[in-house]
Amino acid sequence: MQPNAFKTIGIIGKPSDPSIADTLCNLYQFLEENGCDYIVDEQSATLNPYLTPTKCPLDDIGYRCDAIIAVGGDGTFLAAARAVVDADVPLIGVNLGRLGFLVDISPIQLSNKLSKILQGHYRLEKRYLLQAKIVRDGEIIHEQTAVNEVVVHRWVTPSMIEIITHIDGQLLNTQRSDGLIISTPTGSTAYALSAGGPILHPSLSALVLVPLNPHTLSNRPIVIDDAAEIEIGFREGRQINALVSCDHLEIPDVQIHDKILIKKITKPIKILHPEDHDFYHVLRGKLNWSSGYPL
Amino acid sequence: MQPNAFKTIGIIGKPSDPSIADTLCNLYQFLEENGCDYIVDEQSATLNPYLTPTKCPLDDIGYRCDAIIAVGGDGTFLAAARAVVDADVPLIGVNLGRLGFLVDISPIQLSNKLSKILQGHYRLEKRYLLQAKIVRDGEIIHEQTAVNEVVVHRWVTPSMIEIITHIDGQLLNTQRSDGLIISTPTGSTAYALSAGGPILHPSLSALVLVPLNPHTLSNRPIVIDDAAEIEIGFREGRQINALVSCDHLEIPDVQIHDKILIKKITKPIKILHPEDHDFYHVLRGKLNWSSGYPL
Amino acid sequence: MQPNAFKTIGIIGKPSDPSIADTLCNLYQFLEENGCDYIVDEQSATLNPYLTPTKCPLDDIGYRCDAIIAVGGDGTFLAAARAVVDADVPLIGVNLGRLGFLVDISPIQLSNKLSKILQGHYRLEKRYLLQAKIVRDGEIIHEQTAVNEVVVHRWVTPSMIEIITHIDGQLLNTQRSDGLIISTPTGSTAYALSAGGPILHPSLSALVLVPLNPHTLSNRPIVIDDAAEIEIGFREGRQINALVSCDHLEIPDVQIHDKILIKKITKPIKILHPEDHDFYHVLRGKLNWSSGYPL
Amino acid sequence: MQPNAFKTIGIIGKPSDPSIADTLCNLYQFLEENGCDYIVDEQSATLNPYLTPTKCPLDDIGYRCDAIIAVGGDGTFLAAARAVVDADVPLIGVNLGRLGFLVDISPIQLSNKLSKILQGHYRLEKRYLLQAKIVRDGEIIHEQTAVNEVVVHRWVTPSMIEIITHIDGQLLNTQRSDGLIISTPTGSTAYALSAGGPILHPSLSALVLVPLNPHTLSNRPIVIDDAAEIEIGFREGRQINALVSCDHLEIPDVQIHDKILIKKITKPIKILHPEDHDFYHVLRGKLNWSSGYPL
Repeated sequence: MQPNAFKTIGIIGKPSDPSIADTLCNLYQFLEENGCDYIVDEQSATLNPYLTPTKCPLDDIGYRCDAIIAVGGDGTFLAAARAVVDADVPLIGVNLGRLGFLVDISPIQLSNKLSKILQGHYRLEKRYLLQAKIVRDGEIIHEQTAVNEVVVHRWVTPSMIEIITHIDGQLLNTQRSDGLIISTPTGSTAYALSAGGPILHPSLSALVLVPLNPHTLSNRPIVIDDAAEIEIGFREGRQINALVSCDHLEIPDVQIHDKILIKKITKPIKILHPEDHDFYHVLRGKLNWSSGYPL
Repeated sequence: MQPNAFKTIGIIGKPSDPSIADTLCNLYQFLEENGCDYIVDEQSATLNPYLTPTKCPLDDIGYRCDAIIAVGGDGTFLAAARAVVDADVPLIGVNLGRLGFLVDISPIQLSNKLSKILQGHYRLEKRYLLQAKIVRDGEIIHEQTAVNEVVVHRWVTPSMIEIITHIDGQLLNTQRSDGLIISTPTGSTAYALSAGGPILHPSLSALVLVPLNPHTLSNRPIVIDDAAEIEIGFREGRQINALVSCDHLEIPDVQIHDKILIKKITKPIKILHPEDHDFYHVLRGKLNWSSGYPL
Repeated sequence: MQPNAFKTIGIIGKPSDPSIADTLCNLYQFLEENGCDYIVDEQSATLNPYLTPTKCPLDDIGYRCDAIIAVGGDGTFLAAARAVVDADVPLIGVNLGRLGFLVDISPIQLSNKLSKILQGHYRLEKRYLLQAKIVRDGEIIHEQTAVNEVVVHRWVTPSMIEIITHIDGQLLNTQRSDGLIISTPTGSTAYALSAGGPILHPSLSALVLVPLNPHTLSNRPIVIDDAAEIEIGFREGRQINALVSCDHLEIPDVQIHDKILIKKITKPIKILHPEDHDFYHVLRGKLNWSSGYPL
Repeated sequence: MQPNAFKTIGIIGKPSDPSIADTLCNLYQFLEENGCDYIVDEQSATLNPYLTPTKCPLDDIGYRCDAIIAVGGDGTFLAAARAVVDADVPLIGVNLGRLGFLVDISPIQLSNKLSKILQGHYRLEKRYLLQAKIVRDGEIIHEQTAVNEVVVHRWVTPSMIEIITHIDGQLLNTQRSDGLIISTPTGSTAYALSAGGPILHPSLSALVLVPLNPHTLSNRPIVIDDAAEIEIGFREGRQINALVSCDHLEIPDVQIHDKILIKKITKPIKILHPEDHDFYHVLRGKLNWSSGYPL
């Protein structure tokens, strides 16, 4: 057997979902057989009553391990990625039987695909996160990271909001809409796609801005360089209620004079894929591209 | 001068907008010169400090007049229409200088277009309203009418909601989305259009259901007969927060077991247009169809 | 056994497809057991070398039978419908194992669903066809019917064409685009859907006009009453090459001064569905509405 | 006066358009006053009967000049760019009064904006072209460049075509559609936008693939790195007629076994913009983003 490229593996499971217990159990056994140490996030560690793996708080696990395995769906992977982004530790995704964009190893592929990754045979992919800051009267009052997207959305307000967007200090436009999505390539196959955005290949250094149900019908998604700084404000003179959401974490109560600053975080997360990973293959599966209906 | 087809005219102005004062003043003078009595809604009646027209509460004005003139934008017209729908009185729309779909007479056209309407030379158009009922534990807890659209929308909830729609008792679908618009032909050029819906000609006996950013990309607007009864519910087992809005009036705090019933009101509102009214002409103007950009 | 509602059944098979031979064979046997006479279209009649059913040319079969069974996909049904529209004979659709919008009886449902229809227990649905006429110098030079849609399309021309559309004599718009689809409710789930049109419930008396890749981004599908007469012309002063296609039959070489007139044919085709036919059920299946991908 | 950064200027005018004569005349005078030599493309040189500027064939002009001024619309600029791409000479765009994405100097701005550019004060922007090769039986039978887009389109064929797309040797998908657009950022505001594609900022190293009216509704525009090699083929077993167009030059008669290879040309064209050039400003103007319609 080849030596392991990663000595200690952190495991982060889908929160509040007992159905992952079996996959966790198999994963522990697999790692033991492969001579890896492992540490489990506090919540997942208690799911199997007869097993007592080493556990650790979520915000510590990244610093104590050489690689993280997220077990669940793409949502679990996103949460894990946000939790360990500062620790600069690579992530591996194990799904629960249904292929995801990020969680691309099935429980039955542990011995095949996961073992190869642990031996150092993988494709490393970098994904960049966004950071959103809400600035009020010159002070940052909220700060949040997002793997998929930052959304500025109207909220308990009877009509559309008017959003003013600047990119690197230049006015993009003023638009009346339900809101605006700023999405990474990672997020381009999630909410942004439902809102009419294009798919961005994960390797692109780009962001896409997708207006939500814009009043002006010629408002369209626009793809820009991900080095850009985006500033969002609101048109004066109208009462607004807006919220900002980062992936699915909501920051409510954004006020009319607030500015929202959105910028790429320069340190990426690193995903370890099996060497035969094929983005288009996943895409075809997730979007049912093979299942047209013939007339 | 021809006798007037309408003896007493009700006037409903755009609320809280002092800029309509001049148009109101011109309108009073025009009606006096044409031998019409007129009654003004309480709020608008006080806008001109030196004028003291007969005034009356909004919910009474429909019963005391033979025709209503709404002065403002299409939004003012919508509010007036909802206010007088029970009184079965026809409506005329006067805009403030910018053509609307419903307010199609400009202040400078009073002597020309409005006088002909008052003499009985008009095109009568019927528009149907929707009624939305929110039913909880078998009881109707809210009831509201809409001229444009009823929207079921997610609200302070971190992710999409799952909506189950039945049409005349038959399942249409279960969809994950930001919500669903049920729009009349009148509303088809408003919010529903921003959400990707088609334009419905005002003469159609039809409704259109437009999903808001649906997760399943093949979910598409569907046009159905307006005699249909629509029932909307939510998928059990997920926490939801939804609201229902009728035109722009919001009913928050819809709960997971609530049902929303939507049905056409059988008594239409009647709009009196100038005889040369041309829907397509208005459409071309509102949607800037003449202003393509040549390459 | 109940008496048959239809004495002589016409059978029209998918052209040039030997794979329907088995289903035809089963269908002959089924009809014989149920005491029905049957006549097969000339081409399909020769598919089974050992069977010699009564045969007849396609353009005659509608007049000699009391009902027509189309065997194949929705395309076969469309061709059959166009062939027998003048004969005023109802149609039944048998698919080859894959549910269609029009061919909704599977080979294995013959004894169950088809026998009930033949006994008179069915849901009759009317579908209207369009007729397209190409007029040059005041004379009709081509005439063609369409069940799904009439398309005016650019053809071997280096750029977009400019189309002028009138509805009942009123200008709708002038648009630069790849073309325009005029679709019936039947066609709204076919090509028009790919081009961004809405789904129209089959019971609607409506047509939808869907622009193909219009240059002006606010050009949108518009749904109108199906009693309307549509006239399409071209903007003078530009070289054009256009073609008109009806379902998939193409009429090339449309010239710049030609007019294309499109109108509903007043006599509908009649489809006999099983009594439990559910349009929304077919829709969900055909559009994969149940197969979203969860994040 | 500052010395000129460019000694000899080539002028390429909009072909077959006498209305550019006045602007050409002003341009000659402006260049003479600024001490520049100039050479005019053969066709444009004869437009002013009393003027006899030095002239030269279009395919030579790039090699004989230090900068090219294209006079006309964006289409003229595209043609000029294709003509001089090998000569590695920068381009400047002068419009005829209507701002373009590429021709961003108005005739009345010659003394202001053009003179600054000629003195060396400009913003240089690189735009990459595509090269399409049609390969039959292993041999390249056609080769063509495109500034905006390469389109593979069905042609005189009664139904959709089935396109198989590979990116860098990996299968993207097989799709039934009217065709596929492969667009540069430059082309993303042209035909690709009409077909539902996103806007790509000109600085992006990216391409967008936009399906034309795809049968599978989840087929969406996908943005990829512009270093990718794209190969397009057709599904066997169906008769097809397809054509390939590069900008608006058409290569008809593509056959079922042909492959179309599309790749970026590594040498870019260089556009000289005024220093205050603002892409978003042009975008807002061209797409009428300021002209929403209020309800």
